[in-house]
Amino acid sequence: MTDSATALDFAERHIDDSLERLFALMRVPSISTDPAYAEQCQRAARLLADELASLGFDARVAQTPGHPMVVAHHDGDGPHVLFYGHYDVQPVDPLELWKRDPFDPVIEARADGAKQIVGRGASDDKGQLRTFVEACRAWKETAGALPCKVTILFEGEEESGSTSLEPFLHQHAEELKADFALICDTLMWDTETPGLTIGLRGMVAGQVTVRGPSRDLHSGLYGGAARNPIQLLSTILADLKDADGRVTLSGFYDGVPEISDTVRKSWYALGFDEKAFLGEIGLRVPAGEEGRSVLEQIWARPTAEVNGIWGGYTGEGFKTVIPAEAHAKISFRLVGTQDPDRIWAAFEEHVRARLPADCTVAFAGRGPGSPAVSVASDSGPLAATRAALDAEWGKSALIGCGGGIPVVTSISKILGMDTVMVGFALPDDNIHSPNEKYDLKSFHKGIRSWVRILAEIGAMAKA
Amino acid sequence: MTDSATALDFAERHIDDSLERLFALMRVPSISTDPAYAEQCQRAARLLADELASLGFDARVAQTPGHPMVVAHHDGDGPHVLFYGHYDVQPVDPLELWKRDPFDPVIEARADGAKQIVGRGASDDKGQLRTFVEACRAWKETAGALPCKVTILFEGEEESGSTSLEPFLHQHAEELKADFALICDTLMWDTETPGLTIGLRGMVAGQVTVRGPSRDLHSGLYGGAARNPIQLLSTILADLKDADGRVTLSGFYDGVPEISDTVRKSWYALGFDEKAFLGEIGLRVPAGEEGRSVLEQIWARPTAEVNGIWGGYTGEGFKTVIPAEAHAKISFRLVGTQDPDRIWAAFEEHVRARLPADCTVAFAGRGPGSPAVSVASDSGPLAATRAALDAEWGKSALIGCGGGIPVVTSISKILGMDTVMVGFALPDDNIHSPNEKYDLKSFHKGIRSWVRILAEIGAMAKA
Repeated sequence: MTDSATALDFAERHIDDSLERLFALMRVPSISTDPAYAEQCQRAARLLADELASLGFDARVAQTPGHPMVVAHHDGDGPHVLFYGHYDVQPVDPLELWKRDPFDPVIEARADGAKQIVGRGASDDKGQLRTFVEACRAWKETAGALPCKVTILFEGEEESGSTSLEPFLHQHAEELKADFALICDTLMWDTETPGLTIGLRGMVAGQVTVRGPSRDLHSGLYGGAARNPIQLLSTILADLKDADGRVTLSGFYDGVPEISDTVRKSWYALGFDEKAFLGEIGLRVPAGEEGRSVLEQIWARPTAEVNGIWGGYTGEGFKTVIPAEAHAKISFRLVGTQDPDRIWAAFEEHVRARLPADCTVAFAGRGPGSPAVSVASDSGPLAATRAALDAEWGKSALIGCGGGIPVVTSISKILGMDTVMVGFALPDDNIHSPNEKYDLKSFHKGIRSWVRILAEIGAMAKA
Repeated sequence: MTDSATALDFAERHIDDSLERLFALMRVPSISTDPAYAEQCQRAARLLADELASLGFDARVAQTPGHPMVVAHHDGDGPHVLFYGHYDVQPVDPLELWKRDPFDPVIEARADGAKQIVGRGASDDKGQLRTFVEACRAWKETAGALPCKVTILFEGEEESGSTSLEPFLHQHAEELKADFALICDTLMWDTETPGLTIGLRGMVAGQVTVRGPSRDLHSGLYGGAARNPIQLLSTILADLKDADGRVTLSGFYDGVPEISDTVRKSWYALGFDEKAFLGEIGLRVPAGEEGRSVLEQIWARPTAEVNGIWGGYTGEGFKTVIPAEAHAKISFRLVGTQDPDRIWAAFEEHVRARLPADCTVAFAGRGPGSPAVSVASDSGPLAATRAALDAEWGKSALIGCGGGIPVVTSISKILGMDTVMVGFALPDDNIHSPNEKYDLKSFHKGIRSWVRILAEIGAMAKA
């Protein structure tokens, strides 16, 4: 029996103990956004730190201005990985929609016999982070060591804005730096296929206000001669895209890569049903760039979206007003090496170029923006992880993610590390909603997956 | 001394009495929008009916479901005119901004010595309607007759929606029909030049809602592939106008006439200062059709205006939402014989032609619309009125009005009559605002103007 096989066997035989430890963590109502639960966040952190210490980690609860971090180190040969998870959970309102106490976890059988772990945090992220901890346990209990060097960081503010995360990463950068990071906070492709998220789109967003007349005007008295800021803003926004759905900003597609053949083949193999995907949201005509598949449009192509617009009279009835100003909130999703600052500058230029000489524009509310994050499809850590997942599940999917995961950006920016995102959650897990669940299969095969991933990483040439 | 000169002389000698009668009417707080003042509206109507009866009119207070009308008839040779005015006034809030009791009228001298009648209704419309009544008085007291046949209609709901007006016109159409109507509820061109309003733009307006996804979406997960209704609506609205400021709706300019040489010359003679007009509202680039003067753009050309727009997230901060729908309120100002129904149908067609196959549109809140109203610049009543004004003031202006005056539309539609709009009000009269005033000169020369207009009308060949 190989070491891996022995560790897998241990995990298999002790799955009920693993479940009980998950339940113990889930019983702690570590709702980070509600100050009333601050002490519970401390309890959850302490529980995890104590457990990691008992597994031989050098573990501690590290206080922050908010809820604490758990930091733990374990020596090992081979590459050094940083595993990130979060122990805090979402609030449980509306409580009346829960079928039972959200903090009294239980196993329930679905109609088809499949078992589910039910309770707040079952999936997001207590269940997912525990798959990793239990895999470490299996290795320690069987081999007495881990196949690679492991640092663990558990956050307690992921569901409430991660205020302390970036300062903490800066302050503890030396301590937390590893060869690459692992995160277990993402989705499977489907119930049979674990997902390896290889790209997250970046974003830059802000607000634009165009101003025309110095005051609201009566459209009867001024209509025609007076510039209407809503008309102007509409034209500016319409011009953001051409007839083929491409964004028209100057230099917008600089740094936008074509997806590799590996990724293209992987995506093709997913058998993604565009019609079903769009049908679920009441649509059937893809709105993005001509000639790009829906998966490319949402995973690998940048986009410009107007997220809000307002101006003039918006109440009941009618007022014949030409307003002094009109507003929109705009965001750009970024891929490849698109630079948030340059994209925003190009947007400002786009607006100014369309502004009549007597109108003005103001830009506001722009955050720092975040570039896209991607893991090269030929990277060693990705290949190792994928090999392990393929061995456990018979297959795996390289998937994109149209949105961002802030911690991945923070790790990239502050620690300079790539992140391999492995997830066993499913879209129907009801995360952030009543009756959150995690399939027992996700938990069970998740632990087994990490046992294998740790072995594969240990077998890599140290980066 | 001609009859006119005698009547003018009477008006001149009795100006203080005329003023006192105006004050008596202004002391009645006939605020139509506030039910607490219903009895005061009755009082104002009774005061006017009694006065007209004392002048030899067959006058009555005609009750309506709302505030009453005053209807009065006086025989005479020559054409038959219907004079319209309204005895109700706007509320006086905020009362603390008035320098004195709004219903205790007074004459005040400006710094330059010019005298002003101050109080609610001084201009709109008690002062203006009384110029006509006092002119009738001057004729009756001197000639014992009026130079033409006169019917008077005073409304009491002009400031509160004119709910009873159209039903009343329908019910009393035979009684109220005359050769043409006269209204004294509009502006002078400037302090030296009375205005003859020869055109009112019509309007059709409504709301459009475009719907894409069946629910609000996260722009990270769906951005690119999912149709964004704000983007779609922006494109639809941007396409309403071409680069030259022309409205692109199919058939939009059918029935839009070029202004006559008479009108063009009259407007040229006004010496209108486009720069000052736009400058006062903080603009300097005319926004309407290329090659049209600002006066044409607001008085004689149709326009499409977006009066309100909203969709997506419009609060503080940012939400990366792709909303399910977006909305706009649109109005079209109409001239010539543009048909409100056809224009709106063309707008609906414009929207539908730009709608992706999986999106829907809903139109709502569309009122009946009103076609434009215009008085031909070569019409007899207009020429007679203009001759009288020129005699009194040395000049007069044929002016347009970008907005509508509902009663003119109602008179046109229900009674089939043209309306000559003569006004002595000034833009700084503070109508609808605190410290409303009417220049004593407007009142004085207004009475004299009507004395002359009645004579000129009497001299016309009966229409």
